[in-house]
Amino acid sequence: MAGNANRIYNFSAGPSMLPLEALETAASEMTDYNGSGQSVMEMSHRSKVYLEIFEETKAALRAALAVPDTHEILFMQGGATFQFSAVPLNLLEGGTADYAVTGNFAGIAAEEAGKYGGVHVAASSADRNHTYIPAAAELKPSPDAKYFYYCSNNTIYGTEWKYTPETASPLVCDMSSNILSKPVDVSKYGLIFAGVQKNMGPAGMAVVIIDKTLAGRELPYTPKVMSYKVAIEKDSMDNTPPCYTIYMLGLTLKWLAKRGGVPAMEKLKTERAALLYDYLEESKLFHAVADRSSRSDMNVTFRTDGAETDKAFVKAAENAGFANLAGHRLVGGMRASVYNAMPVEGVQKLVAFMKQYEAAEPC
Amino acid sequence: MAGNANRIYNFSAGPSMLPLEALETAASEMTDYNGSGQSVMEMSHRSKVYLEIFEETKAALRAALAVPDTHEILFMQGGATFQFSAVPLNLLEGGTADYAVTGNFAGIAAEEAGKYGGVHVAASSADRNHTYIPAAAELKPSPDAKYFYYCSNNTIYGTEWKYTPETASPLVCDMSSNILSKPVDVSKYGLIFAGVQKNMGPAGMAVVIIDKTLAGRELPYTPKVMSYKVAIEKDSMDNTPPCYTIYMLGLTLKWLAKRGGVPAMEKLKTERAALLYDYLEESKLFHAVADRSSRSDMNVTFRTDGAETDKAFVKAAENAGFANLAGHRLVGGMRASVYNAMPVEGVQKLVAFMKQYEAAEPC
Repeated sequence: MAGNANRIYNFSAGPSMLPLEALETAASEMTDYNGSGQSVMEMSHRSKVYLEIFEETKAALRAALAVPDTHEILFMQGGATFQFSAVPLNLLEGGTADYAVTGNFAGIAAEEAGKYGGVHVAASSADRNHTYIPAAAELKPSPDAKYFYYCSNNTIYGTEWKYTPETASPLVCDMSSNILSKPVDVSKYGLIFAGVQKNMGPAGMAVVIIDKTLAGRELPYTPKVMSYKVAIEKDSMDNTPPCYTIYMLGLTLKWLAKRGGVPAMEKLKTERAALLYDYLEESKLFHAVADRSSRSDMNVTFRTDGAETDKAFVKAAENAGFANLAGHRLVGGMRASVYNAMPVEGVQKLVAFMKQYEAAEPC
Repeated sequence: MAGNANRIYNFSAGPSMLPLEALETAASEMTDYNGSGQSVMEMSHRSKVYLEIFEETKAALRAALAVPDTHEILFMQGGATFQFSAVPLNLLEGGTADYAVTGNFAGIAAEEAGKYGGVHVAASSADRNHTYIPAAAELKPSPDAKYFYYCSNNTIYGTEWKYTPETASPLVCDMSSNILSKPVDVSKYGLIFAGVQKNMGPAGMAVVIIDKTLAGRELPYTPKVMSYKVAIEKDSMDNTPPCYTIYMLGLTLKWLAKRGGVPAMEKLKTERAALLYDYLEESKLFHAVADRSSRSDMNVTFRTDGAETDKAFVKAAENAGFANLAGHRLVGGMRASVYNAMPVEGVQKLVAFMKQYEAAEPC
């Protein structure tokens, strides 16, 4: 059990574990934030006490990811799916964009972009059920693309881009499931977005990091809430922002900074992933699903040789306090999502349990 | 002080006060919901434990507002501003809609609808700075409108519709600031929406109540997250919903049910508003802004005869523990927002303070 008595190890792909410290602070400040006599949930978003939380959180995110001044940080409601529409509405200008379709959500994003202009599939891993990431040499960007879109970590398939594509057009990346897990050179990107419910906070928001020169190109029928230009001009407050979600992101970023920031997170994620993949290499019962060169450090997909055996394992693990290990319904098998807030100890205990389970099972 | 020692009376127009009981429950369940070993923030939205919260909350809202089976309840991110776009994208079909412009947000909604089709201003109170609601006989709906849109309570101006318009086209209503404050005949409406951050929970979501026969008319370029059809088909879970906000809405609805439901809220809001308006009638220092027949029971706008005197009062009130009494920056003056969670005692104390202040001030 992690931290306090009854806490489970939650391997959910998102929403997912949050730092216990952040939750404890939230609980202690719930009815009275810092002597203000109110909950953060109750604060006017225009009040001084709230604006301090807002600015602090933005600054902490800028520091954590070393976001350069050329880029603005936006907090937008609607999660990544909202961005699947916002990106083409703002950046496509009726032209064509490149999409690397290496998983389910990149595919949905490409489909959505098709409503607003041309979509060129610049890479796809559909031929082998998205178990790999195409090599840099295999990418086929189109000559006049408005942007190049990819999803840096595919939660469902358990694959992760190990390189940053080099493209002539602005790079747009969905980093929902691996943001803050390793350093990123933000200056290489035109736009990064990430739903917060994996590495950053409770569901209900996406963080957008945008090169300011890309704002102001939206199609005339872009909903006002989706305009990056409006969001930049109004500092994410054209309408009431999801104030409490921003506060929780702030608490998570405080925890992250105290633990050593993104470089420390990278060390920990490498450690967690190695524990799992090393065991999967040697196991006779379980095997990893993704190609070795493309394996995600955030979502470890694995399976046995049969769907029934998979199910039995998921159930046994659940009973032992390891929750949400079932794979996504599109692919079955198992998936251990091991984001920043998952203690290394949780993975050690899971691997110990898997070993024990394997030893007890007739293969 | 309300409930526990340091709580202030918060007259913010939104986000605003929440029931202390809901906040205390949230705090106590923060790191371990009901023995599940996890926070509600950490739960997979597909997990059994979360789906119970989701279904319970939906059922509680259906019960509180007596929503008939003809109507579906949706939880959508993005607040009311998101709905300003979603309504015309889903219902306008390139035709024309009627808008009653009785305040700032109805005006923004009409402007947004203009991106997607024709807008006919069926009523306006702009001639007297939105200090009144036009009478039923003054509404001028157009013959082939796709819908008739109005905002039932204008937070900034402190006016409230005391009647439900009778129109040939489906009625669409923004009830953000008075939902759950009085019974509503939902069957009269094609669509009701409300940002939750006033009477229902923390900012970051709107509740949509839609006549199911209105779904499926969206324009081809409607973003997927804005499609009512998709939201109905996927029970608000095409993408990850704002899980924790829904949970907080559920806690607020539990509190509401325990206090006697919407009829009890109506009684309380009448009591709160009368305390303020009765005093404003007799006061020589303060006077109410809105026409008597159109006064809001949720947002009581008032002023003295000078901006400086207003400012001095707001400051004195703040120091005495009555927060956020400044009027909206568009209109100045004062505004006391007295939503469901504001204790009657808070209003009694505010009126006592105002009387005392008036007695001490040279008029």
